[in-house]
Amino acid sequence: MKGLFITFEGPDGAGKSTQLKKLAEFLKEQHIPFIMTREPGGTEIGNAIRSILLDPANDVMTQKAEVLLYAASRAQHVQETIVPALKGGNIVLCDRFVDASIAYQGYGLELSVEEVMAINQFAVSGVEPDRTYLIDLPPTEGRQRMMKRQDPNVSYELDRIEQKHLTYHQRVREGFHRIYEENKQRICLIDGSRNIEEVFQDIVEDFQNVLQKIK
Amino acid sequence: MKGLFITFEGPDGAGKSTQLKKLAEFLKEQHIPFIMTREPGGTEIGNAIRSILLDPANDVMTQKAEVLLYAASRAQHVQETIVPALKGGNIVLCDRFVDASIAYQGYGLELSVEEVMAINQFAVSGVEPDRTYLIDLPPTEGRQRMMKRQDPNVSYELDRIEQKHLTYHQRVREGFHRIYEENKQRICLIDGSRNIEEVFQDIVEDFQNVLQKIK
Repeated sequence: MKGLFITFEGPDGAGKSTQLKKLAEFLKEQHIPFIMTREPGGTEIGNAIRSILLDPANDVMTQKAEVLLYAASRAQHVQETIVPALKGGNIVLCDRFVDASIAYQGYGLELSVEEVMAINQFAVSGVEPDRTYLIDLPPTEGRQRMMKRQDPNVSYELDRIEQKHLTYHQRVREGFHRIYEENKQRICLIDGSRNIEEVFQDIVEDFQNVLQKIK
Repeated sequence: MKGLFITFEGPDGAGKSTQLKKLAEFLKEQHIPFIMTREPGGTEIGNAIRSILLDPANDVMTQKAEVLLYAASRAQHVQETIVPALKGGNIVLCDRFVDASIAYQGYGLELSVEEVMAINQFAVSGVEPDRTYLIDLPPTEGRQRMMKRQDPNVSYELDRIEQKHLTYHQRVREGFHRIYEENKQRICLIDGSRNIEEVFQDIVEDFQNVLQKIK
């Protein structure tokens, strides 16, 4: 079987990581080889970049530096992790990819979507997901879920990205919707406001169809 | 007086940093306000990026990640350091800028020069040097000088960039020459094979002309 590149996209709190892990469990039960990875990060260099990006002390970071750091982490991730795994016949489950940069940096930060796209095209050298699960959720609900992650007994600091305000998250959501409209063949839109099992049912059904097609 | 943005370019070992410091001393004597800075680096975020770039352990770094990390450091540097200094009427003396990326990554690594340029144009948002001193030196001579920097009594590790082989440095030099041909109005080509004082004489003479024009 040839490899499959599956990405999970959507706002913070939508349940991307939970759903990714559930799909990983499903693959494990089926004895289908896979790797789990995430962005920014996924490599040693990527993790070093991730630390710079998510450090709350770096709140002076310019928007353009942010775009370029995400793209740098992605370039490394594609060549060092994703491409070799796909060549080895693995399914690659990846938490965030290019769509996240277009939505968060292009639409969210109101930078040029075309420029953000061009930089990312340079970074990924033609590697594109075979299927993307875009888990949709209103920003207010996502934010509420993020707050619940805080343990009231432990001092918890939201990371630099999460601190940004709600109107920004609204632009990000609209950005994701536009990306969906332009990539309906690749992207499967999932209503993330339901419970974990309901959401996963949609994902796994679609995923089995995708799997059938390449067999 | 309005600010002036002066960059120093050329291969490792050509004497860029020495000449930059000499010009800084000259400005100090003349009581002309200036700042000295360098790339990659020049900001806290830039220095964190610089550590990733120059760490010999990161020899798995992809060429595209390298291009994007330099550009990220530059985007931060322009907005956080260079533009405010220029607005404050300072002369900015900067060790390496966009030309270095075009020469080292575009020509040296044989990536698309157009793509490297486009990414850097995004990073600098229209900020361009008023004058660039390109100190030219044959790669063999630059390499010899770099070796002499080693103290024979101390174990010294050349950084990741310096380790790269000589044919690469030959392409970089040719790249710098092409950039010069396309930007003769901005770039002053300096023969770096002479002694420090002779080289500085050329730079300071030209610099005084540049200064006259903006007064």
